Amino acid sequence: MNPLEFHEKYKGKLSVNSKVPLKNRIDLSLAYTPGVAEPCKEINKNVKDVYKYTIKGNSVAVISDGSAVLGLGNIGAEAAIPVMEGKCVLFKEFANIDAFPICIKSQETEEIINIVKNIAPVFGGINLEDISSPRCFEIEERLKKELDIPVMHDDQHGTAIVVLAGLINAAKVVKKDIKILKIVVNGAGAAGTAVAKLLLKEGVGDIILVDREGILNKNNKNLTFHKKEMAKITNKGNKEGKLNDALKKADVFIGLSAPNVLKADDIKLMNKDSIIFAMANPIPEIMPDEAKKGGAKVIATGRSDFPNQINNVLTFPGVFRGALDNKVNKITDEMKLNAAHALASVVKDVKTEKIIPDVFDKSVVKVIANSIK
Amino acid sequence: MNPLEFHEKYKGKLSVNSKVPLKNRIDLSLAYTPGVAEPCKEINKNVKDVYKYTIKGNSVAVISDGSAVLGLGNIGAEAAIPVMEGKCVLFKEFANIDAFPICIKSQETEEIINIVKNIAPVFGGINLEDISSPRCFEIEERLKKELDIPVMHDDQHGTAIVVLAGLINAAKVVKKDIKILKIVVNGAGAAGTAVAKLLLKEGVGDIILVDREGILNKNNKNLTFHKKEMAKITNKGNKEGKLNDALKKADVFIGLSAPNVLKADDIKLMNKDSIIFAMANPIPEIMPDEAKKGGAKVIATGRSDFPNQINNVLTFPGVFRGALDNKVNKITDEMKLNAAHALASVVKDVKTEKIIPDVFDKSVVKVIANSIK
Repeated sequence: MNPLEFHEKYKGKLSVNSKVPLKNRIDLSLAYTPGVAEPCKEINKNVKDVYKYTIKGNSVAVISDGSAVLGLGNIGAEAAIPVMEGKCVLFKEFANIDAFPICIKSQETEEIINIVKNIAPVFGGINLEDISSPRCFEIEERLKKELDIPVMHDDQHGTAIVVLAGLINAAKVVKKDIKILKIVVNGAGAAGTAVAKLLLKEGVGDIILVDREGILNKNNKNLTFHKKEMAKITNKGNKEGKLNDALKKADVFIGLSAPNVLKADDIKLMNKDSIIFAMANPIPEIMPDEAKKGGAKVIATGRSDFPNQINNVLTFPGVFRGALDNKVNKITDEMKLNAAHALASVVKDVKTEKIIPDVFDKSVVKVIANSIK
Repeated sequence: MNPLEFHEKYKGKLSVNSKVPLKNRIDLSLAYTPGVAEPCKEINKNVKDVYKYTIKGNSVAVISDGSAVLGLGNIGAEAAIPVMEGKCVLFKEFANIDAFPICIKSQETEEIINIVKNIAPVFGGINLEDISSPRCFEIEERLKKELDIPVMHDDQHGTAIVVLAGLINAAKVVKKDIKILKIVVNGAGAAGTAVAKLLLKEGVGDIILVDREGILNKNNKNLTFHKKEMAKITNKGNKEGKLNDALKKADVFIGLSAPNVLKADDIKLMNKDSIIFAMANPIPEIMPDEAKKGGAKVIATGRSDFPNQINNVLTFPGVFRGALDNKVNKITDEMKLNAAHALASVVKDVKTEKIIPDVFDKSVVKVIANSIK
């Protein structure tokens, strides 16, 4: 079956079901009127009881405005629904979380913030998804401040956690201390920015961020606000130039960008035993064979048909499972670092082709959930 | 089990589940990346395909701002959740519709309209619930105009349909033509207003609306806008006074108001073989025995422990099932009249204590759904 036939067959991937019996008048009087008035009155007296009597304690909204969906760009709210439904399926299957897709028509920052705040009562967590940069930064920051439930933009932090986990184990393979690694991150959007920030929190040696225009550095007056901020905290030597210039003497390449931007000769510019995370999907920045020709030692991609698949599905189910179970109302940088180390620790026998757990490894969710507290 | 224990045991009444398998990499590549990009691209090309590839064709939002919940009043968004979840359970159990509760923090008319419009993409229908009058009228009218999916405020129209259905059969029992019935509706909020309007569309003799201040009439300058509008189209004789005055020579009393507002002596003011729908819940406007003492012939309540239970659950599942299946984007007055006649027709052997189908009568949904087209 191809993906279109698959989606047409099931007519969407989610169903909403009753957890309670409803076969007779007694059931009806408990689940609906008149009995339902009792939990309503209790919640009205003490709003915290919403966790006791409703779905809030296990529900997450998967929210997108359809402005940056997969690699497809700004395809709008309706066209984003299949991805958001898919995400909800993953929430259920991996973490037993009841997630529901909310696709917002507006792409105005203030309006999106207002809408999410207003529909938050029934949700125990907010997973922001596929919202374009730099709007995603303000939307997430503001919602974190203004809501008392956990809010996470998965494209940013889900990616950052899994990348750091992979890097922790890759560094073990090449026997380099993560504290001295020189890292090039290609792509300065939502994912690239969050990856760079989390790696800096972990204490890596240096990071150079590269976007389509070249290296982000402090001399460049044309950068947007958020890229200027990133230039301030990265690129210690204030290098200028293109991706090639950044790669010279680097230990790690992290691609969150576009297909085929690298060749073996580019990898040769890097230090010995280089680490390559080529995560553009479905076609990576460089194919594993080509990277190996250039001398790369550890290679990871976003694809399931190569070893070392770096995929957010390893992180967001566990992060929200932990946040819900441990009544965490903010997902902090410390929790993200802990989650990355927890995820890395799941791989017992770290080796070149095994730096990250398999996406279907059932132990991952619990280990990450335990780290979110 | 009492209702609090019941709600605490299940921790809410809904779950969101996957309809698709997700056991291996092939499943993952169909339900999520990379396969999910295909339906996204199709919907981006032709937005109507959202019905083909997503849950939209079977999903309804149950939306409240918590401003008029059951008889509890303005208890707010969180405290409204148990009722909205209950409604979603009924949608599933009676009509196999995937309904999800959305409880909105704001109680500003324009903001609610804006929020509902913005989150509409994933839903095939909007069920408004427990929003206080008169805001509910404008919110529903505007959403009907500005959205291309069916929108129904169930407190209004679900109630109106089931009341008209009951009245059609009650009129048969007392052998009076519905066209000559003089009807008193006590309560001029959302439900009372909608009931009066639908009965007028059906062509009843006359309606007198009564609120806490007394009879709505054209001389009263102190009425709110919507009550003035109702005074214009009701009360042909322009009667003044209290509920008692309205009841004189009336054939039908329809209570959508408060407990114990009537006694047997009040019923005696009415015409012979009076019809009493005392729907205040859980304590009706008059208990059936007391109404009988006053000479009432047909008595209905909202309660399951007396005959003739008038309950919205007989209507909204079928109305939305029909609207979704028949791709109806507006629920018109004609459809509501048809739905009421369809519902009345389900009772084959109409008699004093059987004017309306049992709430668990499985044939009801299909019959009503067929009338919504």
